[in-house]
Amino acid sequence: MLALIGNAVVGQSGGPTAAINATLAGVIRGAIDARDSGVIGTLYGMRNGIEGFLGERIIDLFDAFDTEEKLKLLERTPAAALGSCRRRLKGHLEDAATYSKILEILKKYNIRYFFYIGGNDSMDTVLKLSDYAKDNGYEIKVVGVPKTIDNDLPVTDHTPGFGSAAKFIATTVKEILRDVAVYTIPAVTIVEIMGRDAGWLTASAALAGQNDGIGPDLIYLPERAFDVDAFIKDVKDRLSIHPAVLVCASEGIRTADGEYLGAKGGTLDAFGHKQLSGAGKVLEGIVKAEIGCKVRSIELNLPQRCASHIASLTDLTESDLVGRGAVAAALSGKTGVMMTFIREGGEEYSVSVGSADIGGIANGVKGVPAEYINESGNYVTDDCVEYLRPLIVGEAMPYFENGVPKHIIL
Amino acid sequence: MLALIGNAVVGQSGGPTAAINATLAGVIRGAIDARDSGVIGTLYGMRNGIEGFLGERIIDLFDAFDTEEKLKLLERTPAAALGSCRRRLKGHLEDAATYSKILEILKKYNIRYFFYIGGNDSMDTVLKLSDYAKDNGYEIKVVGVPKTIDNDLPVTDHTPGFGSAAKFIATTVKEILRDVAVYTIPAVTIVEIMGRDAGWLTASAALAGQNDGIGPDLIYLPERAFDVDAFIKDVKDRLSIHPAVLVCASEGIRTADGEYLGAKGGTLDAFGHKQLSGAGKVLEGIVKAEIGCKVRSIELNLPQRCASHIASLTDLTESDLVGRGAVAAALSGKTGVMMTFIREGGEEYSVSVGSADIGGIANGVKGVPAEYINESGNYVTDDCVEYLRPLIVGEAMPYFENGVPKHIIL
Repeated sequence: MLALIGNAVVGQSGGPTAAINATLAGVIRGAIDARDSGVIGTLYGMRNGIEGFLGERIIDLFDAFDTEEKLKLLERTPAAALGSCRRRLKGHLEDAATYSKILEILKKYNIRYFFYIGGNDSMDTVLKLSDYAKDNGYEIKVVGVPKTIDNDLPVTDHTPGFGSAAKFIATTVKEILRDVAVYTIPAVTIVEIMGRDAGWLTASAALAGQNDGIGPDLIYLPERAFDVDAFIKDVKDRLSIHPAVLVCASEGIRTADGEYLGAKGGTLDAFGHKQLSGAGKVLEGIVKAEIGCKVRSIELNLPQRCASHIASLTDLTESDLVGRGAVAAALSGKTGVMMTFIREGGEEYSVSVGSADIGGIANGVKGVPAEYINESGNYVTDDCVEYLRPLIVGEAMPYFENGVPKHIIL
Repeated sequence: MLALIGNAVVGQSGGPTAAINATLAGVIRGAIDARDSGVIGTLYGMRNGIEGFLGERIIDLFDAFDTEEKLKLLERTPAAALGSCRRRLKGHLEDAATYSKILEILKKYNIRYFFYIGGNDSMDTVLKLSDYAKDNGYEIKVVGVPKTIDNDLPVTDHTPGFGSAAKFIATTVKEILRDVAVYTIPAVTIVEIMGRDAGWLTASAALAGQNDGIGPDLIYLPERAFDVDAFIKDVKDRLSIHPAVLVCASEGIRTADGEYLGAKGGTLDAFGHKQLSGAGKVLEGIVKAEIGCKVRSIELNLPQRCASHIASLTDLTESDLVGRGAVAAALSGKTGVMMTFIREGGEEYSVSVGSADIGGIANGVKGVPAEYINESGNYVTDDCVEYLRPLIVGEAMPYFENGVPKHIIL
């Protein structure tokens, strides 16, 4: 089969991660190779995802990244360098104008390869675009490249961006463990961790204890109904063992009736997702009222998704790899697919890059499975730690200048 | 003059920092040299500061740190490895029993050198102990070694521990700047930074912009009365320039009448200091009500004082140096002093270690001077950035194992 000859475009969408630019670097590197072999003319970058593409806000990425040095700097720059958006395409029957506008721009720039780096909602956009182009006889390969710190996409072993967020969390929790242990008075510290529906990030707090056996005391994930009475008992039990008790809880923990613990004052985002805050604060109030000891809550907040100064080398390496893999998949004729990681068997951790039809992926959520949560619902199992362990290995330090990381800004 | 021959003890007190263990390592190294020259018999470590000393909870530090490798690991371990306390000694007239107990233990272990690493309150303890011993004819050299992330001690150019906290803040704010810039809709992000009375940590957020000129939009310190109307105008002005506005505010900002912005629900700590929280949340509410755009607040919280994975090499090196200097000062006969840094003149940044009588230091607070704050009270001046700049230079990466930092735990 001969590869399509034409231009390519790449965009970033959804929430930022510390590795989404490494994937962009991978797509650029793959496209440079394809240019050198005469298949891709140029690679455009859409500013602010599909939103910017509709306004023809595109730049030439071969111009912007004309040296490997700039690509290396891009890899170590957090958040979406091209900008992002939260726009999710409706079906083409509901919003014909948008689709015909996209098709018009694709034709105008002779774009035959379309790469979209994003999470669940972005994969939905990839599927709709691929189908629409096919139905309208426009030959184009549309490939989705996953990114989400939440690790909640099905089919792929894990998602690019997750490992770096998990490494930030494990490291920060470990440092907080040292901090809270300095005093002798009973005190409870609650760390609230991102992950509305999937507890992967919260689970990764357990990695803080993998070397010296001193991890968080208690870990609560959103996959298991949260029982306030059991929580109070758990905390009291731990306080009877040592004075400084550390609790890690997902922002998405909810009681058996499905109510988010931090639901008070919640708002809806553009996709109708409930915006949460305050599970940690609610737990803090419970400890204060029911136990009465010193208590503090910490919301790790945005640094979870942008702390590239403590990125996982494994994550950045794989993120580059999956970006290159997306170009290779498109060149081989694939469309309407999402790139995936397949974990190889064997003693040593290794992954290969694959792809899967988006039909079974978009809008799906992969939570932490029941066998990764202990019986009491207050910690993760050893199998869970085994799964997580390799994803945070290796350091990818930024390039520093005057004591702060160097970033590339388009 | 002949040096006193006997044993030594060292303790850590007050809130943890990322560098307080580097100072401990410096004291140990200095004491090892003094042992080798026959002056110091052994170096004891008090667990949990003066509180533990009163209970004779002491360990032999020459045993615990019998290799340079362990000392290196100690330097890269955050928070007080010996444990800490928040006990501040009363005057000996008010609390004679405590002082006579301390003297009894000093005599029992033949302790002739007493090193105390801590902040303002700890320096007060050093002064009282030194005076009491003198008055009671017990020959001992009592030397304070400063540590505080707040940088609020007088006389010294800066404090050990500050540079690492400032580097964490500058790095994190820089990463958040990348993160918030990915969307095109108007949004205000407020970063609440530690520092009740001194704005040094908040000021160091300006270092995020030193290389590429993109720093926080607005910086508010506690040294200047906070004007809510001016704040709203400042934010609106910045929103008219670009959509993603980043505000850095001290937890201690207060209105002209002296009321803390985050005072609601405050409590008192053991020293009668008001425990604050929520300046960021209050600002978030103001933006929501008065401007109505998307707004989010981030409290950097404990990682500011324990994020040793992004410690400043300058800070760790100087922290070790000041610990060794304390031993040298005591051996030379000094007592009732606090160690200081003196910034040398000249193009290149360099410091020497000195010492000063504690009388003029304990209970003093050194805030950010007026000339380091701009006229509008919403940013720091270039001179302030020049002062801060060298303190965060250099990286002191942890030793990693399985993707997380290695720590030493006593």
